[in-house]
Amino acid sequence: MATIEDLENRIAALEDRLAILQLVASYGPAVDSLDRDGVGALWAEDGRYDFGGDPLQGRDAVASLIDLETHRNYVGQGSSHILSLPRIEIDGDRAVVVNYSQVFVRDPSSPRAGWHADRCSANRWELVRTAEGWRATARTNRLLDGSQPARDLLRRD
Amino acid sequence: MATIEDLENRIAALEDRLAILQLVASYGPAVDSLDRDGVGALWAEDGRYDFGGDPLQGRDAVASLIDLETHRNYVGQGSSHILSLPRIEIDGDRAVVVNYSQVFVRDPSSPRAGWHADRCSANRWELVRTAEGWRATARTNRLLDGSQPARDLLRRD
Amino acid sequence: MATIEDLENRIAALEDRLAILQLVASYGPAVDSLDRDGVGALWAEDGRYDFGGDPLQGRDAVASLIDLETHRNYVGQGSSHILSLPRIEIDGDRAVVVNYSQVFVRDPSSPRAGWHADRCSANRWELVRTAEGWRATARTNRLLDGSQPARDLLRRD
Repeated sequence: MATIEDLENRIAALEDRLAILQLVASYGPAVDSLDRDGVGALWAEDGRYDFGGDPLQGRDAVASLIDLETHRNYVGQGSSHILSLPRIEIDGDRAVVVNYSQVFVRDPSSPRAGWHADRCSANRWELVRTAEGWRATARTNRLLDGSQPARDLLRRD
Repeated sequence: MATIEDLENRIAALEDRLAILQLVASYGPAVDSLDRDGVGALWAEDGRYDFGGDPLQGRDAVASLIDLETHRNYVGQGSSHILSLPRIEIDGDRAVVVNYSQVFVRDPSSPRAGWHADRCSANRWELVRTAEGWRATARTNRLLDGSQPARDLLRRD
Repeated sequence: MATIEDLENRIAALEDRLAILQLVASYGPAVDSLDRDGVGALWAEDGRYDFGGDPLQGRDAVASLIDLETHRNYVGQGSSHILSLPRIEIDGDRAVVVNYSQVFVRDPSSPRAGWHADRCSANRWELVRTAEGWRATARTNRLLDGSQPARDLLRRD
């Protein structure tokens, strides 16, 4: 028969998965509402976000992405950063998470045209368990434009 | 060591989160299949849905959205109401859920053009735990068109 | 008071739901990275995938979809197979899962035009619990083009 300790371990494993779903679900609302602290809270102090070009290094640098001209333009036009249901692999205090992110932007040329997907990317997140919960140590984002690097992010280890 | 009661509380908290994921995942299939009872079952008796214009007040009024001319046109053309992975904050018998919703519609001008996003909205759901499970007391939906009200829905409390 | 056995059953039910979320989240990354074994691992040995036309019958046939000319063209242009948060109904060792799938493809006519949704489909998955975990025995996918068969897949039983 299962012991209390067995059950507790299984519960902790479930809590890990739901905490990671919550982390992924928090990114879009944070960037689209220009919530600097909300973005920063998802990364570890020395975490990194590489979406092509020079990576943003450190929580403060990552959080400052809300001030990028490209980002302000997105938000001004009307943007939705939508992150897909993630595939999650947990190994002790580390986790690797793979999903898609899309940036939908209001089409400025015609209100009737709705929103178009300006970016469709593969994402690979490396997470660590900290005293405050799961945090990103690295997130890599590459446009799914037919090139190999984006596809490689989606692979299983 | 943990007690049975400790574990039970942690399990109940996990069950709450999964029940809320299920509620969110049930909305799109219900409206796209014109399942009036399926829509109504997601709202509390006196629940409200405000997507701009006059809010629909009460479960029956919300469920009747499947008869709106706009909605019937969507479904006739071919529609997908896609709700994103939600950010969930639970406080006792209440929960606040934030996510995106998108309405993709078959492009009538050209079958080759696929589907376009006719709506991209921010959503804030207020849920209550009832004897029958979690139900929406209020859902507010605003187009992410660059205006402040939509962004405000995405904010953390 | 709850017994150990009660708790274990509730934990097992939660584990089932999270395993099914993981299965759904694994499909897109597998097909978009041309990971044949990754696709096959989601289906039972005799599983079937019907997306219109002749159904693919058996795990190997399903996995070989990565070699279809349509699929290779998608991947070459840059594709994202995005599966939405599923509605999950579990009954013992069987489960029925309903969600949306979309195929976003880089628009070849203009890099500035971003990605468009080439397919928007309703999906109904029938899953079975096996010794290796949950696997698909049947997945049916129909374009949401305004016709009844796709809407029927979204219905509750």
